[in-house]
Amino acid sequence: MTNEFGKRTDVNELGEFGLIDHLTKNFKLKNQSSFKGIGDDAAIIENGDFATVISTDMLVEGIHFDLMYSPLKHLGYKSVIVNLSDIYAMNAFPKQITVSLALSNRFSVEALDELYEGIHLACEKYNVDLVGGDTTSIRKGMVISVTAIGQGEKDKLVYRNGAKVGDLLCITGDVGAAYLGLQILEREKQVYLSNPGVQPDLENQKYLVGRQLKPEARKDMIEAFAKNKLIPTSMIDVSDGVASEVFHICKQSGVGAIVEESGVPIHPEAQYRAISFNLDPITCALSGGEDYELLFTIDPKDVDKVKYLPDIYIMGEIVPKEDGIKLHTKGGNVHQITAQGWQHFDNK
Amino acid sequence: MTNEFGKRTDVNELGEFGLIDHLTKNFKLKNQSSFKGIGDDAAIIENGDFATVISTDMLVEGIHFDLMYSPLKHLGYKSVIVNLSDIYAMNAFPKQITVSLALSNRFSVEALDELYEGIHLACEKYNVDLVGGDTTSIRKGMVISVTAIGQGEKDKLVYRNGAKVGDLLCITGDVGAAYLGLQILEREKQVYLSNPGVQPDLENQKYLVGRQLKPEARKDMIEAFAKNKLIPTSMIDVSDGVASEVFHICKQSGVGAIVEESGVPIHPEAQYRAISFNLDPITCALSGGEDYELLFTIDPKDVDKVKYLPDIYIMGEIVPKEDGIKLHTKGGNVHQITAQGWQHFDNK
Repeated sequence: MTNEFGKRTDVNELGEFGLIDHLTKNFKLKNQSSFKGIGDDAAIIENGDFATVISTDMLVEGIHFDLMYSPLKHLGYKSVIVNLSDIYAMNAFPKQITVSLALSNRFSVEALDELYEGIHLACEKYNVDLVGGDTTSIRKGMVISVTAIGQGEKDKLVYRNGAKVGDLLCITGDVGAAYLGLQILEREKQVYLSNPGVQPDLENQKYLVGRQLKPEARKDMIEAFAKNKLIPTSMIDVSDGVASEVFHICKQSGVGAIVEESGVPIHPEAQYRAISFNLDPITCALSGGEDYELLFTIDPKDVDKVKYLPDIYIMGEIVPKEDGIKLHTKGGNVHQITAQGWQHFDNK
Repeated sequence: MTNEFGKRTDVNELGEFGLIDHLTKNFKLKNQSSFKGIGDDAAIIENGDFATVISTDMLVEGIHFDLMYSPLKHLGYKSVIVNLSDIYAMNAFPKQITVSLALSNRFSVEALDELYEGIHLACEKYNVDLVGGDTTSIRKGMVISVTAIGQGEKDKLVYRNGAKVGDLLCITGDVGAAYLGLQILEREKQVYLSNPGVQPDLENQKYLVGRQLKPEARKDMIEAFAKNKLIPTSMIDVSDGVASEVFHICKQSGVGAIVEESGVPIHPEAQYRAISFNLDPITCALSGGEDYELLFTIDPKDVDKVKYLPDIYIMGEIVPKEDGIKLHTKGGNVHQITAQGWQHFDNK
C-alpha cells in the first residue's frame, strides 16, 4: 500500500479529529432533513417537530478492549452504553440500536451468547430496542460497531457550540476512575502473564474496575433536566477525557474556560489509587477517558435548577476565548490545559 | 477463549441467519416507534406518516474485499451502494449515511482520500449525506461499517413477507455477472502472484469486473415504481444470490416459488465467461451474489405497470408453500432450488 501514491502522509500526523475534518471537508449536506452532520456527539435528522439523533461507535479488540480482562457480557453492555451516552449528550433519548459484529472463528456460539446477554441487559435497562445489524467473519479478533438512534424535541437538543461567556461548567459525576480501573486491570494482566499462578486481586478495586468494565450512561440526568425544565447551553459526554471535551466545547462555541481543580469530582478510591500508582489525581481526572459522565454548561440564571440535583458538580466557568482554557489549582496556580488527542492512535 | 465455557458450538453450525436468529431471540421490541426490527433488508422506525428506514453492513478486508484488485475508490463507492440498496429494497429512499472505519497503520492519508472520494461520489450520485461515523485503529487490515438512513411513506413500504400465491416474481436486471467478475479478478490475482511480470488482461472483461467492483443500487427502479404507482407485494435486494433471496421471500411470506430458467436474465458476457470457466451459467446466476438488483413480487393485476418498464424481467411465479421452491429448466426439467447460505462462513 505504501507505494501506490506519490506521497505518504501517516494518519497520526493529523490525529483523529484532524483526519475526520480532512476526509469529510468536501461533503456538503444536500438533504433538507440532514439538520446536523459531522462534528457533534450525534447527527440530527429532522422529522417534523421531532428529530432523529444518530450516533455510531466502533470497538476493536486489542485497541478498545482486551478479552483477557473484559468479560464478554460486560463488553456487550459497554458497547451499547458508549453509544447511548452520545445520544443523551444531545439531550435526546435513545430508542433503537443496531449491532454489527466481525468475528474470527475463535468465538463460539456460547461466547456470543455472553456478549448478547450484555447487549440485552443494556437494552432492557435503557429501554432501547435492538432493530438490526450485520454479522460477518474476520481473520483475527473482534470488531463491534453499534449505531444508536434516538429521538429528541427539536428545540431542546443541546449541541457542543452553545456555550457563552459567563456560563457555568458542570459535570454529572466523578472522573478519572475508569482510567485508573484500566491501569489496575493492565497491572493485573502483567502480573498474571509473568506468573499465571497468581490470582488477580480486584476485590478492593471494585469501584474503579467497574467504572472501566461496566460504565453507565446518564439517562437519569437527562430525565432530571427535563423534569427541572433545564436546557444546558452546550453538552458533550466524557469519552476521551474532560480536558479533550472542554476543548471541543470551547472550540465549537468560540470561548475559553476556567476549570477549578477543587470543583473536579474525584472519587476517594481514584484519589488513593492514583497516588499509589505515582500518578497525579487531577491529571487522571482531566485526561483519563471513558467515564461517560455528561459535561455541560448552563446559563447562570439556571443555577437553582441544578443546585438541588444530586450528582451535579459545578467545576468551572466559561470565559472569553482570549483567556484560553485554564486550570486553577487548589494551590492558587494557573495552568494551561492541553487537549489530550486521541489515545488509540498514540498508543500504538 | 475455547475453554471458558463448558460447551463450544462453532458459529458455522448455525450459519449466518441461524446465528442471528439465535442471538436475537430474546430481544423484544419495547418502543412504540420500533415498527420493524431484525429480519428484513432494513429496520423501520415510525415518525408520523413517514418512516425512518435503517440498514447497516460491515465490510472486512480479506473477507468482503481484496485490496490487491479492489481500488480504494471503488471500495468506498461499493461500501455505500450495498447499504443504499437495502433501503431501496424497502421501497424507501436513503437520505443519510454514517461511515465507521477501523484501519491499520499501513493506510496513509492519501489512501483514505481515495476511499473517501468513492464514498463522496456515491453520496453525490444517490443524493445522500454523510452525517457521521467513527475512525479508529486496528492491528491488521481494514473494516468499514456503513449505516444508511432512509425515508419512506409508511403505507408504501415493502417487506419480505408480502408475497401471495399467484404473484409474479420479477427482477430488475441481469444476475451472475458480479460473481463472474470476482472469478476473473481472483484468476488474474493468482496469475500475478505466480508471475508478477504479467499484466492483468481485464480490458475485455469490463462489464463483469465492473459489476463486481463498482455496483449500482436501483434508485431508478424505485423512482419508476413511484411514477407508475406500483407497490410490489414483497421485495429484497440481491446481495447473497437470487436463490438465497427467493428463499427469504418464500420463508417469510409462507409461500413457494417457481423460477423459470428462461426468465432469469443473464448478460451475454456472463453466459460466455461462465462456460469458459466450466461453470453452469444458471448456477452462477442463481447462486452468485452481489448483483444488487431488486428481486420483487407483484400482484398479476399490476403486470401492465411493469411491462413497459425497461430492465424488469418476470422470472417466475409464487406458488403454494407445499409446492416448494423450484427451477423449471429450459429443457423442461424441474429441480429443487437450494438456498446458498452465507458464503463468507463457508469460504474460510
